[in-house]
Amino acid sequence: MALIVQKYGGTSVGDPDRIRAVADHIARTARAGNQVIVTVSAMGKTTDDLIRLANDVAHDPRGREMDMLLTAGERISIALVSMAVNDLGVPALSFTGSQAGIVTDTEHGNAKIVEIKGDRIKEALDSGNVAVVAGFQGVSTAKEIVTLGRGASDLTAVAMAARFGADACEIYTDVEGVYTADPRIVPNARKQSRITLEEMLEMAATGGRVLALRSVEYARNHGVKIHVRSSFTWAPGTWVEEENPNMEQAIISGVTHDASEAKITIEQVPDQPGVAGKVFRSLADEMVNVDMIVQNVSTAGHTDISFTIPRVDVTRSAPIMDKIVAEIDAAGYQTDDSIARVSLVGAGMKTHPGVAATMFETLANNDINIEMISTSTIRVSCVVRESDVERAVVALHDAFELGV
Amino acid sequence: MALIVQKYGGTSVGDPDRIRAVADHIARTARAGNQVIVTVSAMGKTTDDLIRLANDVAHDPRGREMDMLLTAGERISIALVSMAVNDLGVPALSFTGSQAGIVTDTEHGNAKIVEIKGDRIKEALDSGNVAVVAGFQGVSTAKEIVTLGRGASDLTAVAMAARFGADACEIYTDVEGVYTADPRIVPNARKQSRITLEEMLEMAATGGRVLALRSVEYARNHGVKIHVRSSFTWAPGTWVEEENPNMEQAIISGVTHDASEAKITIEQVPDQPGVAGKVFRSLADEMVNVDMIVQNVSTAGHTDISFTIPRVDVTRSAPIMDKIVAEIDAAGYQTDDSIARVSLVGAGMKTHPGVAATMFETLANNDINIEMISTSTIRVSCVVRESDVERAVVALHDAFELGV
Repeated sequence: MALIVQKYGGTSVGDPDRIRAVADHIARTARAGNQVIVTVSAMGKTTDDLIRLANDVAHDPRGREMDMLLTAGERISIALVSMAVNDLGVPALSFTGSQAGIVTDTEHGNAKIVEIKGDRIKEALDSGNVAVVAGFQGVSTAKEIVTLGRGASDLTAVAMAARFGADACEIYTDVEGVYTADPRIVPNARKQSRITLEEMLEMAATGGRVLALRSVEYARNHGVKIHVRSSFTWAPGTWVEEENPNMEQAIISGVTHDASEAKITIEQVPDQPGVAGKVFRSLADEMVNVDMIVQNVSTAGHTDISFTIPRVDVTRSAPIMDKIVAEIDAAGYQTDDSIARVSLVGAGMKTHPGVAATMFETLANNDINIEMISTSTIRVSCVVRESDVERAVVALHDAFELGV
Repeated sequence: MALIVQKYGGTSVGDPDRIRAVADHIARTARAGNQVIVTVSAMGKTTDDLIRLANDVAHDPRGREMDMLLTAGERISIALVSMAVNDLGVPALSFTGSQAGIVTDTEHGNAKIVEIKGDRIKEALDSGNVAVVAGFQGVSTAKEIVTLGRGASDLTAVAMAARFGADACEIYTDVEGVYTADPRIVPNARKQSRITLEEMLEMAATGGRVLALRSVEYARNHGVKIHVRSSFTWAPGTWVEEENPNMEQAIISGVTHDASEAKITIEQVPDQPGVAGKVFRSLADEMVNVDMIVQNVSTAGHTDISFTIPRVDVTRSAPIMDKIVAEIDAAGYQTDDSIARVSLVGAGMKTHPGVAATMFETLANNDINIEMISTSTIRVSCVVRESDVERAVVALHDAFELGV
């Protein structure tokens, strides 16, 4: 008897028809002799609707009351999915994050999982029920209701899979799996049948929207096997799992892109120990998520530091930047929110030198200027003009022969 | 420093504007130096919408999963009300029924309150917060989420008032108080400035829709003072409280009517001890709520028994009735769902003989046939044709000179 975790996103349970289709698949999985834990997101645009209501009644709603509000969305979907599964003659019980024993720290809106108790889930499974768990939510060590951050329904599924040693964690979504590039931009993009957790991590971090970054990190730390697939076609999707040394790696598993960030450049920074630390500590203290950081070699005792941050944080970063520039005695700073990042990800590039060179040549041949570069062992990222990024994705996908 | 409980119904918190108006009133009450516990219902038609969704995904949704679903409605409204109060600079915290310590039995959909713990509410009040409690819900002794039955948000408010010895339990609704008759039928109906809990109980039981019956019972048992008033005009409404022996009673405090019931008559029932017991035990076992019961004197060893039940229960009562008729060897039974009940309620009628006679004469003078009669010390009810009931209300309101 296998234990399967299935996660259904907002579009997968967007209306009663979709809920009945999902319930049918859950019931089949259970009837095939599997134990099943289901995690669901809020239906369709419910979360956005609730946020809009909150902004209509208060000026800066957040924290405890916002979490109380938003957790209603998953409560509705777990109840409806359970009813629909019960209606097919397969017993199912719904559980809130709190009832499922998802214990977190006390950071409202973005709580971190501390422990998964799961006693009631185990009991439900042992007595022959499908357990339907609300994604995205938990209970803090202070006994308050919290949310785990947007997109964290994936995290709930992966955490449940880790806690119960599930044979597979199936993430159902509205695409068929992980593609070599965004199929809306590259029509001949190819669905990968498998990629490694490390590749998925780099893809999630650089704009691959299929899985949330935190859930991939959690899966890697706990050895969870993820199967990303479609709840619309039910076709086999992409397996995301630990690297298998017997299997030859594709050199490149995908081209990702991300146009949600802005670039900040601090000019004429005195080249002294401790300066970079000061800059990024100040931003971290204000919870601004800094992504790429590039510092050039120093000339004449000064250097420029460039980094990217989410565009939505640009406005509230301005006073922090003014303070930093004064403190470290830099010449000033510039913000550029017309950039985008294009990345090549592939575990195979570790053993294939020349990937970066081919990438830079390809961009140059297409008259696309590279503004920043950063690399990891399995990724090369370039910052380019936002207006060039789709051409960059198509050119790279073609140059590395990733298409069908 | 007084402790005030305020309850806001679904229309009172029906949209963001209403929520901000309610928050303003709560903030004023708190700023005036009162401790405030607020209870809210789900916004507008939320509960109906959720029930519709449930019926779209399953054939007979109820029990545990239905309660999980419906409790989302009040969760949304407590969070929004708390945010809006906080936004006015008055600290407020929201609590689910479970967090408020409303402990119940295990009957899903219609749970009875067993105990109000309220530790977290006390803590919130002691530290200067408004406590906003979800109406209509609690946690069962089996640690499951339950609902207390429709209209039970009033009950939550009254139970909180009883637990904390509140100085007043203000029930805010979309009417200005308790009227001598339904103003939609009797334009000159008068708002009562006060009525007794006993009168309110009889009115609630006979079609007065302002307060739910269970909440009035709970208030009477625990000596809670209720003030029914409007959240649209904020004008003083009707005080519902224990009888004050120094105050002269109005003879009649109101005419109520109810067209939600059907009449069932069992014909030719053998006049033997135990027969009535059998009939009503069988119905009670199936949770059919029997209201008026009338049995005529027996002739030739047989009698007819008539009673009223909610029309919504007629269909599911049919097999029970067939079984009962066979068991007690009656001739058969008839169902009539075109009836309505008109009632006169008034604590003063105890000391004023002739009220019933005047009522019957008034109906006769208006050619309205009386099909069943039942009385209590402070109420007389007549079953009439449904098509006659509005005329009956107007005629009685006039005959007893109840108008403005």
